[in-house]
Amino acid sequence: MSEVAGRMSIVMGAYFLAEHAGGRGTLLGGVPGVLPGCVTILGGGTAGFNAAKLATGIGAETTILEIDSERMTQLDMALPAARTLYSTEASLTDLLPRTDLLVGAVLVPGAKAPRLVTREMLREMRDGTVLVDISVDQGGCIETARPTTHEEPVYVEEGVTHYCVANMPGAYARTSTQALTSVTLPYVQRLALEGVEGATRVHPELGPGINCLNGALTNVEVASAHELTASPVRWD
Amino acid sequence: MSEVAGRMSIVMGAYFLAEHAGGRGTLLGGVPGVLPGCVTILGGGTAGFNAAKLATGIGAETTILEIDSERMTQLDMALPAARTLYSTEASLTDLLPRTDLLVGAVLVPGAKAPRLVTREMLREMRDGTVLVDISVDQGGCIETARPTTHEEPVYVEEGVTHYCVANMPGAYARTSTQALTSVTLPYVQRLALEGVEGATRVHPELGPGINCLNGALTNVEVASAHELTASPVRWD
Amino acid sequence: MSEVAGRMSIVMGAYFLAEHAGGRGTLLGGVPGVLPGCVTILGGGTAGFNAAKLATGIGAETTILEIDSERMTQLDMALPAARTLYSTEASLTDLLPRTDLLVGAVLVPGAKAPRLVTREMLREMRDGTVLVDISVDQGGCIETARPTTHEEPVYVEEGVTHYCVANMPGAYARTSTQALTSVTLPYVQRLALEGVEGATRVHPELGPGINCLNGALTNVEVASAHELTASPVRWD
Amino acid sequence: MSEVAGRMSIVMGAYFLAEHAGGRGTLLGGVPGVLPGCVTILGGGTAGFNAAKLATGIGAETTILEIDSERMTQLDMALPAARTLYSTEASLTDLLPRTDLLVGAVLVPGAKAPRLVTREMLREMRDGTVLVDISVDQGGCIETARPTTHEEPVYVEEGVTHYCVANMPGAYARTSTQALTSVTLPYVQRLALEGVEGATRVHPELGPGINCLNGALTNVEVASAHELTASPVRWD
Amino acid sequence: MSEVAGRMSIVMGAYFLAEHAGGRGTLLGGVPGVLPGCVTILGGGTAGFNAAKLATGIGAETTILEIDSERMTQLDMALPAARTLYSTEASLTDLLPRTDLLVGAVLVPGAKAPRLVTREMLREMRDGTVLVDISVDQGGCIETARPTTHEEPVYVEEGVTHYCVANMPGAYARTSTQALTSVTLPYVQRLALEGVEGATRVHPELGPGINCLNGALTNVEVASAHELTASPVRWD
Amino acid sequence: MSEVAGRMSIVMGAYFLAEHAGGRGTLLGGVPGVLPGCVTILGGGTAGFNAAKLATGIGAETTILEIDSERMTQLDMALPAARTLYSTEASLTDLLPRTDLLVGAVLVPGAKAPRLVTREMLREMRDGTVLVDISVDQGGCIETARPTTHEEPVYVEEGVTHYCVANMPGAYARTSTQALTSVTLPYVQRLALEGVEGATRVHPELGPGINCLNGALTNVEVASAHELTASPVRWD
Repeated sequence: MSEVAGRMSIVMGAYFLAEHAGGRGTLLGGVPGVLPGCVTILGGGTAGFNAAKLATGIGAETTILEIDSERMTQLDMALPAARTLYSTEASLTDLLPRTDLLVGAVLVPGAKAPRLVTREMLREMRDGTVLVDISVDQGGCIETARPTTHEEPVYVEEGVTHYCVANMPGAYARTSTQALTSVTLPYVQRLALEGVEGATRVHPELGPGINCLNGALTNVEVASAHELTASPVRWD
Repeated sequence: MSEVAGRMSIVMGAYFLAEHAGGRGTLLGGVPGVLPGCVTILGGGTAGFNAAKLATGIGAETTILEIDSERMTQLDMALPAARTLYSTEASLTDLLPRTDLLVGAVLVPGAKAPRLVTREMLREMRDGTVLVDISVDQGGCIETARPTTHEEPVYVEEGVTHYCVANMPGAYARTSTQALTSVTLPYVQRLALEGVEGATRVHPELGPGINCLNGALTNVEVASAHELTASPVRWD
Repeated sequence: MSEVAGRMSIVMGAYFLAEHAGGRGTLLGGVPGVLPGCVTILGGGTAGFNAAKLATGIGAETTILEIDSERMTQLDMALPAARTLYSTEASLTDLLPRTDLLVGAVLVPGAKAPRLVTREMLREMRDGTVLVDISVDQGGCIETARPTTHEEPVYVEEGVTHYCVANMPGAYARTSTQALTSVTLPYVQRLALEGVEGATRVHPELGPGINCLNGALTNVEVASAHELTASPVRWD
Repeated sequence: MSEVAGRMSIVMGAYFLAEHAGGRGTLLGGVPGVLPGCVTILGGGTAGFNAAKLATGIGAETTILEIDSERMTQLDMALPAARTLYSTEASLTDLLPRTDLLVGAVLVPGAKAPRLVTREMLREMRDGTVLVDISVDQGGCIETARPTTHEEPVYVEEGVTHYCVANMPGAYARTSTQALTSVTLPYVQRLALEGVEGATRVHPELGPGINCLNGALTNVEVASAHELTASPVRWD
Repeated sequence: MSEVAGRMSIVMGAYFLAEHAGGRGTLLGGVPGVLPGCVTILGGGTAGFNAAKLATGIGAETTILEIDSERMTQLDMALPAARTLYSTEASLTDLLPRTDLLVGAVLVPGAKAPRLVTREMLREMRDGTVLVDISVDQGGCIETARPTTHEEPVYVEEGVTHYCVANMPGAYARTSTQALTSVTLPYVQRLALEGVEGATRVHPELGPGINCLNGALTNVEVASAHELTASPVRWD
Repeated sequence: MSEVAGRMSIVMGAYFLAEHAGGRGTLLGGVPGVLPGCVTILGGGTAGFNAAKLATGIGAETTILEIDSERMTQLDMALPAARTLYSTEASLTDLLPRTDLLVGAVLVPGAKAPRLVTREMLREMRDGTVLVDISVDQGGCIETARPTTHEEPVYVEEGVTHYCVANMPGAYARTSTQALTSVTLPYVQRLALEGVEGATRVHPELGPGINCLNGALTNVEVASAHELTASPVRWD
């Protein structure tokens, strides 16, 4: 889903930069004779790579902030049109006054996103610029980000349009569903053909997903939440 | 301005394909494992080329319909990721059922745009797809297109979202103004330095733009519209 | 060798699409004004990647079917002009009626290739289209594929030209030999310099290749096939 | 048609370099660890550009020989992976011993192709290399080239396989026909709608194609060939 | 020669940015994690295009300043990694404080180069940055530029290293000579085969190059410079 | 630092090929009509990849010699414009007579670089060509290489200009420092926040860097060099 969110962050950012949508009227890709807009992407993981791919594809000046030097080398190989920059407060402070679209794509699996941009730093961005925080459902990596919905996707704070929809891929449901079912299909097929036991033996990663089995509660977390006792799954 | 309109047609198309915006939920660029959307562009002039540049940049499957074989060769050189196809009713009928975004970019300088897509042909497009008719202020090259505004940019007909804003570049006013002033600045400088006569001698293309001079009406069309007599400009 | 086979599959496919070679007369790369041919590649491993690299290089519309989502992300990074699609019977059924060249590149190391295309599915392809099954010496991933030779490389079934040469790289013997000797040379040098024992100590992967040593049979499989006893190699 | 011939020259060259087809067994694109083959293209016009486009697309080391420096600059812009070289006997003599595929693409409209490669120069090429002379129906730009047919497309002279089919695009009849009808359709439509006179007034280039009209012979060349008198077409 | 000068301007600029050569120690292409240097090119003609080609090739952030909007569209097609910007004093003033290498490539055939950068503007550049003025033998487009030699190619003014060698291509004499002889060879061949009269009839552009013929002075400018009378060449 | 050294090897090589710098006057990227120079790179690791990236970026014909076939496949994916070749004495002997710039980039971590090019092999290179040995501070992979300084970076042997500065990245100190501090900053931050013990617990790789602690010598190598006794660091 990070791939959908990363790519659509640029579409949404480009759209909300339009003047009638509250933006400062900058076309991200520019045109001959006019400089393109600047896209700054926090984090070079899957979401950040996909955001950078689209941002360079439409011709924006694109910078990815990362802290892992091996990942920066990979990005430099795969996406020569984007620039990588070591992520520090100093480098962010340099870039924000020139940034038209800021994408928060710092996703730490199973953890709260680190807060990289404070409200004060955000004031460096010009009025009518846009930020998209993909990590908003993990707490967000930008202080002023709070979850919004597809019905009311944006709000303005410190002059910057915030697009912080918690479930971004829902906007492109057809593409997202195809991507999701592609990944889950092998598990479903295995479950249908071989039952829960057979499937879990082949794909042990399915195990933690079983909550009850043969009438018994099997999930420890669920059990403790309801003050019950769990009988964890065990195949002999 | 065709460059701004061509490029932004893809941004608008991508946005209105989102489900919450009434679209069928297809992300134009796809993601790994899911095919990208199809963009069909009518006309390979400046607007069409710029639309194709962005469409291929975001990873959509892009086809440009043209009738001039020399122009097709140029497009093939400059934009290898896009496909060119000789524009006929048959080729359009083939493409429409697979098209997610249709861009009308047939601009004939100083003439009405030819009508290429009839209402009946449009019915071949699937529900929730989008069309952007850049040529709408020249009458439009799609039968169902009628001018809209930035306030209410779209309407649905035959299940297809129509984005037909008459003055598209106004949405990205900053970029458009920079582009426009870049082109007009040399004329303005010349006028400021050398006056109307001096500037018109160097740039004779300014001549037809003079409507009155030294108290006399100089433009033939304006004069005849008001049943007056014109004294055309003449420098000796 | 998968690299040679993958790349040459496109050359052979392009050749046998010519009318005088029994094909339907489609030039894979198209020309300006005419859509390119469609290449569908089953499997995105080394052979499939190399087939896709050449297919996109000559301008064909190229789709790679895969089931591993990480590999699809890699292919998307390395080969942006090709599209990846999750491999299911449904996605194949969609693509076959539009496919001009089908490349079977599903190679499972040391195992029989899975059967992905049945005779019935093949009937969806148009007459005069071509298939190349690189996996034919592992049983083939297409039901109708059976090994052929460089002397008689093709046969027609269900209207589709089948190129199923069992030892494809033999056609480009010079390139294949250079590739093969490049990889084996370090072993040969080590054997020449240090003898069997020295070389096997440094490169233990050589061990299973020793069939007899100092007059004794050392390979268990060979011994049991001839009802003899083996003395497996052991260096102390 | 030059576009079809240019592109297919690389497909045919790649095919006939295979050992079972009489070639030296070099895969034009090489593989990692083995250098690619060398393609030398005589002439950087439409046919030569299209040959170079495919040759670089499959990864061959590609050199275009030209004499027009403006055209070389254009080629350098459009095809950065190919190298351009001023065409002299000296530069050809340098390249031939390293060339795997030589493409003759020197087409002078309405004139005999200049002879650039003599039999003696050809002897510099290694055994099993291939040449394709696209200009063979204009006399050929290689001394040893003589027209062949799709049934027997090649012959060997001086150790070099000669592919010299006079009507190359016929091999890919579907693509060629689509390209040809795309270009001629507007004329046919105009003729059908407005008759010979109307069509010729709009497209005067049709004029020289009229051989007889209203029972009178109108073509001067045809008339003189048959010792008759022509009444050239004249619309008042 | 503009092609040689344009390309080598980047090599020389990159070299003189090294600290031991007096520069500020910026590697033009950057490395992963460090932003690349900025190259600003005045003029998008042949020299400017070739400078931009190399600058983007090594990964620098490259901006071309131009005034001709059609040329900007061409550059945008041919060199998507470079940005074009309408050349005004304002846009230059914006760019100079961020520029690491400034290339003056404003060459007006047969005229003095316009002065675009004054000494005062130059003070905006940081210490240790570099400028290369290709147009220096036409007077230079930068106020502080004065011709230097290959022996002492640079001097420092306002903290900026000036590389202003009057005959830049002389540094790469082998490449320059090959390029020059490629272009002049057809004239030399014609002169050798057909003499002065024959060659000048075919190539009238040779005419103005004849200074004396059959003992008579033929060049008007030379004659007037020496207060003699010229008998201009005339073939009947 | 290998990234800085790899990229700058091409800048230095291109500069010292200029005639006034003692080179043979070949512009590495060539120009339209003149073949580009040949760059041969020994080793496809980080330094070699970065050298190849710049060499192809400026248009040189670039060959990387490697022995690891997996790495060659990676390079082929990431840098399609460069060619990879299995590194043997035979392949080197083939390439050296055509090479304009030879880059030694064989860096074995913590070991002496293998000697790949002998003095005798070097004699195959033409006069005025250049070599840059990045591995010189590990003993160099070219027999004739010996360390030089930024003050006197080159010397000539066997007619070949040797650029063998031991600390190459020092030339672009600004870029190198930014790269270096980017990588070391997290360690410094951890040390500042949590002291030596805390930091070493999180980043055990810091351990071997501690030479003395709380007044005691902790490094075994240092101790034995001074005939003292070490008390290795131990956190309980």
